[in-house]
Amino acid sequence: MSKNPESVPLCPLNSAAATELEPLCIFGTGDLGRSLGQRLLQSGYKVVYGSRKPHSCGPLPPGTQAMSHSAAAQSAALVFICIHREHYSFLETLAPQLQGKVLVDVSNNLKKNLYPEANAEYLQRLVPGAHVVKAFNTLSAWTLQNGPSDANRQVYLCGNSAEAKQAVAETATKLGFTVLDRGSLSAARELEDFPLQLFPEWRLPLRIAVGLTAAFYFFLLIRKVIYTYVQKGDDISFRIMVSLANKVFPIVSLIMLSLCYLPGVIAAFLQLYRGTKYRRFPDWLDRWMLCRKQLGLLALAFAFLHVLYTLIIPIRYYVRNRITSSTILLIKQNKTSPFDSTMAWRSDSFLSFGILGFGLYVLLGITSLPSVSNALSWREFSFVQSKLGYLTLFFCTLHTYLYGWNTFLKPTSYPWYTPPGYLLCLIVPTVVLVLKLLLLVPCVDRSLTRIRQGWDRANKVDDGEKSLLA
Amino acid sequence: MSKNPESVPLCPLNSAAATELEPLCIFGTGDLGRSLGQRLLQSGYKVVYGSRKPHSCGPLPPGTQAMSHSAAAQSAALVFICIHREHYSFLETLAPQLQGKVLVDVSNNLKKNLYPEANAEYLQRLVPGAHVVKAFNTLSAWTLQNGPSDANRQVYLCGNSAEAKQAVAETATKLGFTVLDRGSLSAARELEDFPLQLFPEWRLPLRIAVGLTAAFYFFLLIRKVIYTYVQKGDDISFRIMVSLANKVFPIVSLIMLSLCYLPGVIAAFLQLYRGTKYRRFPDWLDRWMLCRKQLGLLALAFAFLHVLYTLIIPIRYYVRNRITSSTILLIKQNKTSPFDSTMAWRSDSFLSFGILGFGLYVLLGITSLPSVSNALSWREFSFVQSKLGYLTLFFCTLHTYLYGWNTFLKPTSYPWYTPPGYLLCLIVPTVVLVLKLLLLVPCVDRSLTRIRQGWDRANKVDDGEKSLLA
Amino acid sequence: MSKNPESVPLCPLNSAAATELEPLCIFGTGDLGRSLGQRLLQSGYKVVYGSRKPHSCGPLPPGTQAMSHSAAAQSAALVFICIHREHYSFLETLAPQLQGKVLVDVSNNLKKNLYPEANAEYLQRLVPGAHVVKAFNTLSAWTLQNGPSDANRQVYLCGNSAEAKQAVAETATKLGFTVLDRGSLSAARELEDFPLQLFPEWRLPLRIAVGLTAAFYFFLLIRKVIYTYVQKGDDISFRIMVSLANKVFPIVSLIMLSLCYLPGVIAAFLQLYRGTKYRRFPDWLDRWMLCRKQLGLLALAFAFLHVLYTLIIPIRYYVRNRITSSTILLIKQNKTSPFDSTMAWRSDSFLSFGILGFGLYVLLGITSLPSVSNALSWREFSFVQSKLGYLTLFFCTLHTYLYGWNTFLKPTSYPWYTPPGYLLCLIVPTVVLVLKLLLLVPCVDRSLTRIRQGWDRANKVDDGEKSLLA
Repeated sequence: MSKNPESVPLCPLNSAAATELEPLCIFGTGDLGRSLGQRLLQSGYKVVYGSRKPHSCGPLPPGTQAMSHSAAAQSAALVFICIHREHYSFLETLAPQLQGKVLVDVSNNLKKNLYPEANAEYLQRLVPGAHVVKAFNTLSAWTLQNGPSDANRQVYLCGNSAEAKQAVAETATKLGFTVLDRGSLSAARELEDFPLQLFPEWRLPLRIAVGLTAAFYFFLLIRKVIYTYVQKGDDISFRIMVSLANKVFPIVSLIMLSLCYLPGVIAAFLQLYRGTKYRRFPDWLDRWMLCRKQLGLLALAFAFLHVLYTLIIPIRYYVRNRITSSTILLIKQNKTSPFDSTMAWRSDSFLSFGILGFGLYVLLGITSLPSVSNALSWREFSFVQSKLGYLTLFFCTLHTYLYGWNTFLKPTSYPWYTPPGYLLCLIVPTVVLVLKLLLLVPCVDRSLTRIRQGWDRANKVDDGEKSLLA
Repeated sequence: MSKNPESVPLCPLNSAAATELEPLCIFGTGDLGRSLGQRLLQSGYKVVYGSRKPHSCGPLPPGTQAMSHSAAAQSAALVFICIHREHYSFLETLAPQLQGKVLVDVSNNLKKNLYPEANAEYLQRLVPGAHVVKAFNTLSAWTLQNGPSDANRQVYLCGNSAEAKQAVAETATKLGFTVLDRGSLSAARELEDFPLQLFPEWRLPLRIAVGLTAAFYFFLLIRKVIYTYVQKGDDISFRIMVSLANKVFPIVSLIMLSLCYLPGVIAAFLQLYRGTKYRRFPDWLDRWMLCRKQLGLLALAFAFLHVLYTLIIPIRYYVRNRITSSTILLIKQNKTSPFDSTMAWRSDSFLSFGILGFGLYVLLGITSLPSVSNALSWREFSFVQSKLGYLTLFFCTLHTYLYGWNTFLKPTSYPWYTPPGYLLCLIVPTVVLVLKLLLLVPCVDRSLTRIRQGWDRANKVDDGEKSLLA
Repeated sequence: MSKNPESVPLCPLNSAAATELEPLCIFGTGDLGRSLGQRLLQSGYKVVYGSRKPHSCGPLPPGTQAMSHSAAAQSAALVFICIHREHYSFLETLAPQLQGKVLVDVSNNLKKNLYPEANAEYLQRLVPGAHVVKAFNTLSAWTLQNGPSDANRQVYLCGNSAEAKQAVAETATKLGFTVLDRGSLSAARELEDFPLQLFPEWRLPLRIAVGLTAAFYFFLLIRKVIYTYVQKGDDISFRIMVSLANKVFPIVSLIMLSLCYLPGVIAAFLQLYRGTKYRRFPDWLDRWMLCRKQLGLLALAFAFLHVLYTLIIPIRYYVRNRITSSTILLIKQNKTSPFDSTMAWRSDSFLSFGILGFGLYVLLGITSLPSVSNALSWREFSFVQSKLGYLTLFFCTLHTYLYGWNTFLKPTSYPWYTPPGYLLCLIVPTVVLVLKLLLLVPCVDRSLTRIRQGWDRANKVDDGEKSLLA
């Protein structure tokens, strides 16, 4: 279903269909008005333009005609307002002609909060007798001219009149779009802000990710490459491309995964301390909790890169060369390669927990897809994201501990007194896991559950009420 | 669009908006009532509580007021019933005051089938003059207090009055939710059961997966680790972590993939045997067919783990050690490593079919995503899931045959008379593929097609009708 | 929510519910009519069949009854027409009895464009006094009999009467389906064509992919396998399975990725040349642009296979054998394996850019999922698909350049005067990247932006208008 409309521009309806559909009016002969008019024509509508200078308004789609605003308004029940908001004021004088008409406000602004009220609400105030519907503004100009395409299949609309919305919805459906009703005109502000947004909720997590990556890259560059160069005179700068990346990515991934679960733990302790759930969290905690999903998905992206960087290890020229060289050396020294069972256990456990952790990671990512999470009940969603999420964190932390093993005990692990990267990255996840474990202690868990069910320490004492349930 | 509402708790609407919206009434001052009231207040509504003891009902969100149930009901057209079902009975006495009001039933039960009728239907029976709408019950308490979040964007509602549903839908939209109408009040039972479910359709497949994994792990543990320890005294228990897992996972994956396709084949033979499609399948077959998707997705998960476990092979300490050791041994014995072209063919074919099978596997998984399968026509969906599904099964089975090659002929493959794991796991897929091949024989295929188009062997003979089409 | 309906066939409603629902009528006692009737019965409806021969119409679901068409029509407000379109004509004579009834047209055709008008429109013309609703036709017969399943959850409907559509929607909801309103009856054609489609928009991209794969396989077969056999007498045909595949797949992937971005670049230059955006693109360009998404997803599939084929390299028997042999040879010749820092840089950069490119590739694929792209504003979508898309192309092209390095300078790279495959596959992406770079030159970019905002070189000159905005 969702693909057919794309063929619309290629096979416009025939004229028989055109005569059946009611005429539509477009105010404004600019780019938007012309694009929309062309598209409406192709879907079989008769289109009339309202213009200040109907005789010199420039080229219009063939088959349409331009007239004065008032004449155009009278010829149709539905008027598209393809005019910049700054020029709306003249519509006030047309109020009598627009009485009872459906006005479709398709406008957007260049910035958020440029005006005190939404464009559509301003329009409704100017022409109180008309039924203003906000619609089509979330579509790109390309889509308005060429029909639905990938991210442009849905027309959001809002307005105070159900009949007016129905009329606009019918037109949108005829153009091949899916319609989503967003309620009354008070939602217009939200719809007008939508096209301006560029991943607002991803900014903070992205900044954290970039910051952590840069910091650890720099730190490991000094510890590994520069230290080796200064102390031994060896240039191992080629390690920047793969070896260093494959140390930084898992570090950032693990830290960001634990940052996903840290705010929940902090919130729980805050509720325990306050003895109520009815007091607002501080703003920074609220903001942090709202970007947990994005933190988690970025963590998954870094884990994905870590997996790929790890799997190509045996193909690397450096690794192949080193293995051959060490084999040759062993033979020259007439040694064998003794097998260490503990080492095998450690290596295999390390890899195994990494794989299981990554598998769960991917599962968390899949359940974050909108269509999957919409199909889940919140009990199912919280089971996956919370229970399985902590299991993921546990596996990944264990993976890192097994990676480090006892190397942190060796003095050579501290060049220039810097600790190994894996030690640093274990701090946050260990803290989160320990705090979570504390919250699972029966008596703590019971208190928290009571608070989350509405129990209130302060009011419990003051009012002496037995139960807060009516 | 779907992300904006999350910012609602951070920026409550101003008081100007609040005065415009009609007052809403909430019966019940427990946790749910208070959370919902707080949220409605933040969205600009005026909220009035109905309580048995309006003067001592505990702390309420500031700005709201509590009164008696009958006074509160009269002040609003829409009443949220935030009371446990057990206490509904007193509402019968309020029937006159609730006449014509919209009652929103947000209640849930602790278990399924606790009561003979749905809570909302019971409420409607108590207050027949009111318009009961079931809504909001699928949301978590957290969501009701803090606004839409991931798995909690959609408000399902049902009710017998279209106007009442419209009124509730408007409120839900103002709170930032997307509304999905589920029809008349008879759907209330389904909505009330929804929050209680925890992956009901995943249970059987998960049990099968866990059972198969445990059985094969145990089997291979005996065959490999314990046998080696008993017979040779070697402790190779470290193999549990990776080697054994990488034998068990592909075995379970292949068996579960073939279990996806087995019920379809059984159903076809049953229809052929019965000569009609109008007789019910036995219950076990129905249940099996309904969980094919979950079986397939679990099979994909195991295949994914198998791929990762395979790809890390060259990084394992054990493997590196063994390769180095064998090279050293060859040199000490002054041997070379002769190249066997057949072995190269077998190894590369084995890997190649594995990769192609996994690629198709992933494709099947992607088309199982709700948003992807919704965009497909059923002809497309069945092409992918049936045609490409059998191709996947064929590739994976071939991959396993190439893995086994002729090792099943060697006596050393049968320690303690146990057959190799790959031989066991080939039974079901081979049976499925052979049976499917039989169904593709033209005359069988023709009979089956006729039956599926409604032909009925028994009635054909009895009635002597030429055609069953009207 | 979306899974519950599947349990409907297993637990039909009790008879108490059945008596509440209004009776429904089905015209036609063929397979479709019987399947639908069975399903309606299970959902609690009373079903009456209309038949030409009510006494000898074959077996009907128990509990239903058959009567003459006119008698059946009078007993219900909603009539399902389960008759082939060819037999519709007799309905004209029933027009008086069908006056004011809701007629549900569930029919499909065997081919597209078999008739001048849609079945539902034809039905409406025959019985103008009835309210025709097109519905249920996109479901499979299996679904009509057994209830909603994966790709069959949604009932699309269209019709000219809102009340009639509401009535049908209620019934569909009771059967467990989600309803999508597609507007007026003029959408019936689209709905009737939907079940016939089998990936129409994937055909061209698939043909390109198959063509490119076959061509490069053949080309490399000659260059590598046959050349080696003819010149040196070595049979390296086993390389077909992995080595050759792993050369062909990345080549096809890179070419197809660049073919995604080529039409956009061509369109931009065409607009620059024409000086307007209001002239239609040639048909071939339109068609090309409409399948960019499919081209990209196929390119991703090939890239995915390339990654897997690359990662299994160290496991291959051939590779292991070669490494061991070369180590033994080095030792026999008493040589060491000298480390080349440039080689390490090249190898690691090559792998690193490949991984980053693939990571972005996957990101593009994920944002192509309907549920993800629907959640994005078009600004966000075009940022990902255009900006990140070009970055992906750049990384992958760089990856290929690093792979080739300076081997194209060696005469041995040209067996039988054929150029290496990687050289051929670099042509299109290099052209696309260079052209895109030209478009980013400030003055070119400014002209293009002006044209895309509606500026028109020809009309600018002719009309002398200052601004085209009203």
